[in-house]
Amino acid sequence: MESIKGKVAIIGTAMTPFGGLYDKSVEDLAQEVFINCVKSVDKGIDPKEIKAGWIGSIGMDLLIPGGMSGSWLTTQMGNADIPITRVCDGCITGGDTLRQAVIGIATGLYDVVIALGAEKMTEKTASDLLMPLGGELLGFNPYWIWGMTAPATQALYATRQMYEFGYTMEMFARVAVKNHRNGKRCPYAYYRHEVTIEEVLKSPLVCWPLHLLDCCPQTDGAAAAILCRADLAKKYTDKPVYVLGSNVGVDYALYWDKANFIELPATIRAARGAFEMAGVKPAEVDLAETHDCFTNTELLNIEDIGFCKKGGAGPLVMEGEFDIGGRIPVGPSGGLKTHGHPIGATGLFQICECFWQLREEAGERQVKIDRGIALQHNVGGAGFADSCVTILSRSA
Amino acid sequence: MESIKGKVAIIGTAMTPFGGLYDKSVEDLAQEVFINCVKSVDKGIDPKEIKAGWIGSIGMDLLIPGGMSGSWLTTQMGNADIPITRVCDGCITGGDTLRQAVIGIATGLYDVVIALGAEKMTEKTASDLLMPLGGELLGFNPYWIWGMTAPATQALYATRQMYEFGYTMEMFARVAVKNHRNGKRCPYAYYRHEVTIEEVLKSPLVCWPLHLLDCCPQTDGAAAAILCRADLAKKYTDKPVYVLGSNVGVDYALYWDKANFIELPATIRAARGAFEMAGVKPAEVDLAETHDCFTNTELLNIEDIGFCKKGGAGPLVMEGEFDIGGRIPVGPSGGLKTHGHPIGATGLFQICECFWQLREEAGERQVKIDRGIALQHNVGGAGFADSCVTILSRSA
Repeated sequence: MESIKGKVAIIGTAMTPFGGLYDKSVEDLAQEVFINCVKSVDKGIDPKEIKAGWIGSIGMDLLIPGGMSGSWLTTQMGNADIPITRVCDGCITGGDTLRQAVIGIATGLYDVVIALGAEKMTEKTASDLLMPLGGELLGFNPYWIWGMTAPATQALYATRQMYEFGYTMEMFARVAVKNHRNGKRCPYAYYRHEVTIEEVLKSPLVCWPLHLLDCCPQTDGAAAAILCRADLAKKYTDKPVYVLGSNVGVDYALYWDKANFIELPATIRAARGAFEMAGVKPAEVDLAETHDCFTNTELLNIEDIGFCKKGGAGPLVMEGEFDIGGRIPVGPSGGLKTHGHPIGATGLFQICECFWQLREEAGERQVKIDRGIALQHNVGGAGFADSCVTILSRSA
Repeated sequence: MESIKGKVAIIGTAMTPFGGLYDKSVEDLAQEVFINCVKSVDKGIDPKEIKAGWIGSIGMDLLIPGGMSGSWLTTQMGNADIPITRVCDGCITGGDTLRQAVIGIATGLYDVVIALGAEKMTEKTASDLLMPLGGELLGFNPYWIWGMTAPATQALYATRQMYEFGYTMEMFARVAVKNHRNGKRCPYAYYRHEVTIEEVLKSPLVCWPLHLLDCCPQTDGAAAAILCRADLAKKYTDKPVYVLGSNVGVDYALYWDKANFIELPATIRAARGAFEMAGVKPAEVDLAETHDCFTNTELLNIEDIGFCKKGGAGPLVMEGEFDIGGRIPVGPSGGLKTHGHPIGATGLFQICECFWQLREEAGERQVKIDRGIALQHNVGGAGFADSCVTILSRSA
């Protein structure tokens, strides 16, 4: 097996502010982020140099799943004559859209490509029939168990984290406190206010032990990255960010097949493969954007990725180890907790944050860059059985 | 730009019979085709040798688009620890799923991968609300024009073909006659009876000038292919089939942006790129499986791919040029016309047919293999604005 390490560079990124973008269609969001992504390339790029595209979206065509596809982006690009493929794999769609673009470059077929994700979670369509409540109702599969919404699923894990490791609701709430503090400093976040542990614990209960402020909100948004062959990167920017590894991990989707409720094996697999590909260890990572759709999920992620041992993240989050300024800042953007989770866009907004952080352009939420390595992580889908991890670096 | 030419081989294929498979779930279909695809490799393969997967399906999770993803296939594979990505781009999903797998091999990341598509079009879910009528109702986008179902869209093209080129309903019907004659000889086809031009013309009108027998049926099915690095292929079979080129083309999806209604620019773009990549000309193709969701569409396809000039396919189909035994047999399997169009599986069933034909294993529907080159084509999505073309060869 060859490696993609050092073959692919990210040369520009852009995202829309995330939120209830009621006055914009998913097509508007895609166009806006496409234009801004092209503009973001330091030394300029002609859109015609982009030779292939991957788009991530699970719901841009909610009435007819899959009915829309590549043509949806090409229209925004002035009917470009390039191949465009739609990726659609649940909550990891954004991260895996980037991964497909990375593979597209690494294969030598294309010199410059785009990965773009866009999603309207607030769209008034058939989805309203299916997502009648606030919070996250995805990860729900009607064939298996009615009622297994995402909060209900993660509550199974949260209760087991409490039982096995003595995790407390305060520990979960502390994740929200950290991510709201970070999100307040991020102009793209939807929630830009701080919260206290008490406020989290007093917010309405969604599914015990998870409160409303333990759950990420429903938002709309789009994000994109332009990638090129690493050896061409300096033509476009003096500060490219290189892809060292990118991997997807999967697991049984059915709950009765799960070995336990204290880990997400998909993340463990995705991270192991990505670290191996990158030749990097967890301790070398300067910052991570993990999939904090729920506060307890972030604690699972931190352990499953390997930043600490299983059962260790709860106490460490209380000690501020994952704050900006801590040992490994996690979610310096404010994460899904403050941005929401417009599914196809989520992984790519995390890539934007890693890109800006590694380039030290993150303003008042900038973390200290030491080894110059960042990690992006998604996990989700039915049974939280899919994960994607990408490792980025300032040096090839 | 490097080429993928000669880097990737198909070493095994399998498909389920297509039809109203009411007693099987989409998971059953995926498992059945996975097992049979592994078994189809002449010299045997251990499923553990498969190091990555791409699955194509647009509706396996109709109630929650995108909720299910890679984990759905890994469960069928015994929880394999491999990355699996779901591709979901309308009617070209099957063909593009193969293309993503080809890119995955060509990049050097994986030695052996699987591309698998599965779809339940008859599933009793929310889709019933959206597909209340027989025939093809995809390609419909509620944002644009209510009522622009697939038959209605293709009727716009059919009427223009009649106006511009003097095409007749008999010419459209002749496509059905040919494809039913071929499908009768294919054990995987759903319709295995012949039809006459008179029967087509007397069948109920769906949308003038298209009759019921001009439309492909709604069916369930699954199909898959196992691919490997070309230099490893002989380890698995003495008769590998090589991928010479694979390309996606896109177009404006909105009808008011169309330049005319006598061609599908997505096909023209996809085919041009694939032929260029393959270093092959249309006249060198021994057989083609094109996307005959409607009879008039097959005539568009034949012209857009470049097998004859625009306006030429109608008279030529009457002369039998595209019959088995004709100049370029088109749809020797019987095509979508007799198999139906279980979307994620369709492109891959066409790949199965090309694979079997090139290996001269197609029984009583075998075409004469001369240069050893076959072409597979999908077109569709909203506005028929997406196309995928793959060119296969007996020699690398």
